[in-house]
Amino acid sequence: MKNATSLTADPPWASAVLTIDLEAIAENYRRLAGLVHPARCAAVVKADAYGLGAVEVAPRLAAAGADLFFVAQPEEGMRLRGVLPDADIAVLNGLPEGAEADYEGLRLIPVLNDLAEIDRWARLARSRGRSLAAIVHVDTGMNRLGLPAGQVDRLAAEPSRLAGLDLRYVMSHLACADEVGHPMTGAQSAAFRAITARLPRAPTSLANSSGIFRGAGLHGDMVRPGVALYGVNPTPETTNPMRACVRLQARILQVRDVDSPMTVGYGAEYNIARPGKIATIAIGYADGYLRSLGGEVHVCLAGRALPVVGRISMDLTTVDVSDVPEDEAHPGGWVEIIGSIVTVDDVAAAAGTIGYEILTSLGRRYHRHYVGSARGSAA
Amino acid sequence: MKNATSLTADPPWASAVLTIDLEAIAENYRRLAGLVHPARCAAVVKADAYGLGAVEVAPRLAAAGADLFFVAQPEEGMRLRGVLPDADIAVLNGLPEGAEADYEGLRLIPVLNDLAEIDRWARLARSRGRSLAAIVHVDTGMNRLGLPAGQVDRLAAEPSRLAGLDLRYVMSHLACADEVGHPMTGAQSAAFRAITARLPRAPTSLANSSGIFRGAGLHGDMVRPGVALYGVNPTPETTNPMRACVRLQARILQVRDVDSPMTVGYGAEYNIARPGKIATIAIGYADGYLRSLGGEVHVCLAGRALPVVGRISMDLTTVDVSDVPEDEAHPGGWVEIIGSIVTVDDVAAAAGTIGYEILTSLGRRYHRHYVGSARGSAA
Repeated sequence: MKNATSLTADPPWASAVLTIDLEAIAENYRRLAGLVHPARCAAVVKADAYGLGAVEVAPRLAAAGADLFFVAQPEEGMRLRGVLPDADIAVLNGLPEGAEADYEGLRLIPVLNDLAEIDRWARLARSRGRSLAAIVHVDTGMNRLGLPAGQVDRLAAEPSRLAGLDLRYVMSHLACADEVGHPMTGAQSAAFRAITARLPRAPTSLANSSGIFRGAGLHGDMVRPGVALYGVNPTPETTNPMRACVRLQARILQVRDVDSPMTVGYGAEYNIARPGKIATIAIGYADGYLRSLGGEVHVCLAGRALPVVGRISMDLTTVDVSDVPEDEAHPGGWVEIIGSIVTVDDVAAAAGTIGYEILTSLGRRYHRHYVGSARGSAA
Repeated sequence: MKNATSLTADPPWASAVLTIDLEAIAENYRRLAGLVHPARCAAVVKADAYGLGAVEVAPRLAAAGADLFFVAQPEEGMRLRGVLPDADIAVLNGLPEGAEADYEGLRLIPVLNDLAEIDRWARLARSRGRSLAAIVHVDTGMNRLGLPAGQVDRLAAEPSRLAGLDLRYVMSHLACADEVGHPMTGAQSAAFRAITARLPRAPTSLANSSGIFRGAGLHGDMVRPGVALYGVNPTPETTNPMRACVRLQARILQVRDVDSPMTVGYGAEYNIARPGKIATIAIGYADGYLRSLGGEVHVCLAGRALPVVGRISMDLTTVDVSDVPEDEAHPGGWVEIIGSIVTVDDVAAAAGTIGYEILTSLGRRYHRHYVGSARGSAA
């Protein structure tokens, strides 16, 4: 999944650079794995490893000990097999009709979301005379994917429908684990226990990133962290226990003096009130720097948080650098968009969204640097 | 700029398909070119042709008659040269220090945004003993890129700074052309005329997509349409004069019966009020289907506009299909996300943004189909 639009070598004038710390991701994995031990710790690498690059990230996670990976789409599973020849790869979006042979050939584990998928996969297994690995997903309240209650009843009544399957896990998915103490989490956990008690015995899995931090009672036999691996805070009510993995920098293209009654940008909506300086930087909403961030977010220059002013354009963003010494805000210089001063979660809050969306929106024009390779690290 | 994450052949169970009509883009170009004749009609293909794929789109525009293309970043210009060996390619973000030789080698035309860029490019031309093509950008109120007033004064006083340059155009950029009758447009047009009268005589360019529709007085010698080429309405106050170019479809993964007091999705925020059906479809905010669309947008199934309910997930979206006959809403079926019923502009309005951002956010996981190739079409 390496991006064809990334240049292989950075010119000294690169417009914007995204640095992804693979060692930080590996450390986050090891921390979570330690926390849930003896439960198995999978790694969710769907959506191109939350925008960070599954081809680079997944092998690093494997080196750190992960041996079960979750993707969303069959397409993602097929590509991931190319860089993870041996790991277990499970496909959350299920088993589309007609994809059975591809799953079998690439040893993809379907997360079976309804009885029809169970029946098709089990029938194939029986026709082959050998078991096929599967995960069964039962719904406990998301109403998104997974067997609804009526189908659970039927499966409980006819467990032979699973004959031929190597049932690795029965899983469900939490709707509100990011909100500490949300009653939905307890209700889903109870519903999940009740359901698994009625189905053939199999290992269980319920917790996503946030669920891991809501008590060992949710860990079951396997947990499925995603966003926590990538440094987004899985416990929004308190300090982020994870290590940041992403640094994003964009180039200053121009710095100009401004004064009242000038305006800045499209719509002429931002009014200059006093003499100052505006820097125009080489990043815009086409890079996933969401247009809703205009006037709401800060960037970092020379250790200072500086406000983005005016609307964000497709390729450009304007920043008030009035308070920065001239030698620190000049064309060719860098501005930090995401880093230790302005975090992924800060940008998400400014955009009225969650860190997940900031990561998955990370642009395709960035020069991507991967640091912290597996060599020399504990695995 | 073809995307390495696009599959080359679609499996019959493809998760989501984006169809891009190159002939519609070409028709939009010809319509705009006819409208502005005898002014030259450039084509803006920055941000990967507004997310539609510059490698596919730009040659089709060239076949339709475009011979001047604008990109934002130097990186984009360099890649575009690979598929447009002969066309003029201009780089809006200017001439970064150290990139001069790359621009010269690839015959990229820098849009010179300040005196320092003018001086560096002109000095190179004089040292080479031959002229180098350039566009000079003067600011008339965006306060984003382009020579500020003080630099215009200096250039007017020292026109010899341009010696060595083949000054193709003097340009500026409109801030409010999408709002009919906005006073900023007239003010910028007047400022632009006053500036160009003081600089060495050169062809002029002011109008973007919307500017083209704000009167021939804005056309000058060259116009720079972008979003109108791709079917977004450049005249939001009235009917869209452009042809739609994009169709986006996503697969139904599961359909479930729901009833009160169930909730749907993350946060358990969407409450089911009565017996009905929810379809889960294979698209999410990781595909650029912005999270802010949750509960605000419709999709189209069997000719009906149906509401998206609950929060949009990373890879999944839930739709109320209660009113659709069972044989029309089934796993494996298609839902139209963008098309003739729900347009790009409709999706943008639902997200609280503009069509530009919907296009540039279009996801990397889609199977992309290009229809309407140049063969057999009038060029």
